[in-house]
Amino acid sequence: MAAQTVASTPDAATSANPSASTLSAASTGSVDLGPAAALSCRECGHRVPLGPVFACEECFGPLEVAYDFSAYDTEELRARIEAGPANIWRYAPLLPVPADVADKPNINPGWTRLVKAENLARELGVDPGRLFVKDDSGNPTHSFKDRVVAQAIEAARAFGFTTLSCSSTGNLAGAVGAAAARAGFRSCVFIPHDLEQGKIVMAAVYGGELVGIEGNYDDVNRFCSELIGDPAGEGWGFVNVNLRPYYAEGSKTLAYEICEQLGWQLPDQLVVPIASGSQLTKVDKGLRELIELGLVEDKPYKIFGAQAEGCSPVSVAYKAGHDVVRPQKPNTIAKSLAIGNPADGPYVLDIARRTGGAVEDVNDEQVVDAIKLLARTEGIFAETAGGVTVGVAKKLIENGLLDPTLTTVVLNTGDGLKTLDAVAGTGLTATIRPSLDSFREAGLA
Amino acid sequence: MAAQTVASTPDAATSANPSASTLSAASTGSVDLGPAAALSCRECGHRVPLGPVFACEECFGPLEVAYDFSAYDTEELRARIEAGPANIWRYAPLLPVPADVADKPNINPGWTRLVKAENLARELGVDPGRLFVKDDSGNPTHSFKDRVVAQAIEAARAFGFTTLSCSSTGNLAGAVGAAAARAGFRSCVFIPHDLEQGKIVMAAVYGGELVGIEGNYDDVNRFCSELIGDPAGEGWGFVNVNLRPYYAEGSKTLAYEICEQLGWQLPDQLVVPIASGSQLTKVDKGLRELIELGLVEDKPYKIFGAQAEGCSPVSVAYKAGHDVVRPQKPNTIAKSLAIGNPADGPYVLDIARRTGGAVEDVNDEQVVDAIKLLARTEGIFAETAGGVTVGVAKKLIENGLLDPTLTTVVLNTGDGLKTLDAVAGTGLTATIRPSLDSFREAGLA
Ligand SMILES: [Zn+2]
Ligand SMILES: [Zn+2]
Repeated sequence: MAAQTVASTPDAATSANPSASTLSAASTGSVDLGPAAALSCRECGHRVPLGPVFACEECFGPLEVAYDFSAYDTEELRARIEAGPANIWRYAPLLPVPADVADKPNINPGWTRLVKAENLARELGVDPGRLFVKDDSGNPTHSFKDRVVAQAIEAARAFGFTTLSCSSTGNLAGAVGAAAARAGFRSCVFIPHDLEQGKIVMAAVYGGELVGIEGNYDDVNRFCSELIGDPAGEGWGFVNVNLRPYYAEGSKTLAYEICEQLGWQLPDQLVVPIASGSQLTKVDKGLRELIELGLVEDKPYKIFGAQAEGCSPVSVAYKAGHDVVRPQKPNTIAKSLAIGNPADGPYVLDIARRTGGAVEDVNDEQVVDAIKLLARTEGIFAETAGGVTVGVAKKLIENGLLDPTLTTVVLNTGDGLKTLDAVAGTGLTATIRPSLDSFREAGLA
Repeated sequence: MAAQTVASTPDAATSANPSASTLSAASTGSVDLGPAAALSCRECGHRVPLGPVFACEECFGPLEVAYDFSAYDTEELRARIEAGPANIWRYAPLLPVPADVADKPNINPGWTRLVKAENLARELGVDPGRLFVKDDSGNPTHSFKDRVVAQAIEAARAFGFTTLSCSSTGNLAGAVGAAAARAGFRSCVFIPHDLEQGKIVMAAVYGGELVGIEGNYDDVNRFCSELIGDPAGEGWGFVNVNLRPYYAEGSKTLAYEICEQLGWQLPDQLVVPIASGSQLTKVDKGLRELIELGLVEDKPYKIFGAQAEGCSPVSVAYKAGHDVVRPQKPNTIAKSLAIGNPADGPYVLDIARRTGGAVEDVNDEQVVDAIKLLARTEGIFAETAGGVTVGVAKKLIENGLLDPTLTTVVLNTGDGLKTLDAVAGTGLTATIRPSLDSFREAGLA
């Protein structure tokens, strides 16, 4: 049933790639993931057939999905996309999913609002017609994680997995629970046992296994790595480990949607949050694909990375001019971005420098101020990660790195309802008795 | 500036309609609300020009928006809708809004997912291809209230109001706060002062005035009625009072979207929650309009109303065969439906009986079970109101009132993140040490 088997002689390469048998299955053509042709090493270019593997057997570099887009005619492709469903599957021809993906049970995220943020623009002193917020809180479980999990689900189906799993401290747990429930997978999600009760409820309601690990998030991750290499993990797809190459591709859809919603135009500037850095690299990949396919005009764009000061390893490296990222111990309210040792940090540095962008950070107070700023100007209640991107956009405008006359898109990747504590100080502006006298006394008239 | 004035000789009719001067403004053509031609009394048919009034001056009956759709060609209209934006403004030709509404700052709700609920259908024993959940948790503030507030915003603009207001115990406060912020209105929302802190934060984050009233929800409502009749309320649009005729029309878009998403087909059966009953009556109105416009085939449909047992005045009246609804004191976890004296109750009874539907209720335990059922089958985490509709659908199937072979749409009108307390008992399925031994001991392998 499950495609995954365990190597008999564990070593670094095989424990990262415990599914050698799947490779032959894939290479015989039994795996249909649409235009996905192979996995390719980001470091050395080594190619392997599609399978539940994530690290290069030659150099241990990260594997990425490589596509064959050669058959596409630009205008036919554009028409096909525009006639597609109002979710990420309109881009099925550009994703590692079968052509009939829209007919399968999935949570169908995406096609979220691109909000022209005129009020916010005026407050920030930029062109009111050219500032946009891509609001991913409209996804089914209200974060961009639905995009990546939706890809992982299709890969899991293709590889014959029956259980979907992940380690998580929040958004991902809910996204995996919901998607697995709908798609008919068993789910087993691992979280630190002392997570806040609200976050536990948000993940537990979908009815899968929700296992508390006595330890911190690092302990949870270490345990998951062990499980992948053990017979007990047979048939298990860990969305952000052995399915990671497919999972990560989901973030490309943010780039596709932004360009299509701008009328098939590249934005000039994007402000993207950095956790592992994967999302930012995939947004860049998505933009480059659209250029190569001729769907948008080839012109320069700048990608800016956003971190919280309390977890700013990439920002620190960027400002110091370093190519490597020194790990930090996170201490910020932006918990969904709190990855102290971001795997894709070096790639993010490359992209920020290559495109003429930058990486910047804001402190927790600025994060809270930015959440409130976005809410009172545009009616969008963002998660702390959205406070980070809006706060960084403000700072980049102030220090002259972000051009206020160009088209700019700021990403909000999550929902304020999930991080209510960050704005817990917000409250009643007045308390009155139910009378007009009391109303007038309070100065509300 | 404001269109609202105060009658010099208050009586029942004028205190309900304190804006006589607006009527002449509207009748001279200065109010552009698209196809909206007048307001018409639901009881006696008396027509008055468009204005911020809500009760008939002849009989005190509720005023509704009357339209002139006579100029529409069916196929041109269908094409115009299909080419429209992926939000409620695709239906602008059928709503009391100006033709250029999509260009104005609004929160642009709607075009939410219609989920084919095959897993849920199998659990309920109905045709898996014909059960759908209309999931309105995807709206900007995650409830159907965004639809109605978006209409009220455009009416407020047309009437020259500068402050947007409402009384609320939850969803509506957030929807008004968000929409007012984005549309550039001042907002002043009244809530009971002892509301849960989480709900206060969700409304306060948008930065408008949020006023706690020392009293219960009835006291808040009474105070708002006083304020509308007072000079202090001049320039104020109360979305669910003096803007109610426009506001209420927003619920029609649920019917439009369901039919379009079914391929311009009427569903055979709908399960709709009842609070004031307004939504159910407007869903019926929307379906009838589509039939009259020729956009869907004219065939019978049944509308079922859903209440919580702890606030079931309409269900009780339905089962007793009464035409009038006896008020109840609400006591249920489904707080967004807890209106003990529903204004549109008699109309709901009419519609359920005329269409061959029914009104049913479920107790709080069944509500919680239904929330969990929907989450574990379809990955949709519903508010308590969604637990009520899914629970009632289940009960109607069990007692034979809902035909399991026909196309059925169940409405989920809100988001589980807003009523986490209802499922607070949900938690970890296991707690283990970070080791494979501990994993195996817990029976998870
Ligand atoms: Zn390599
Ligand atoms: Zn009347």
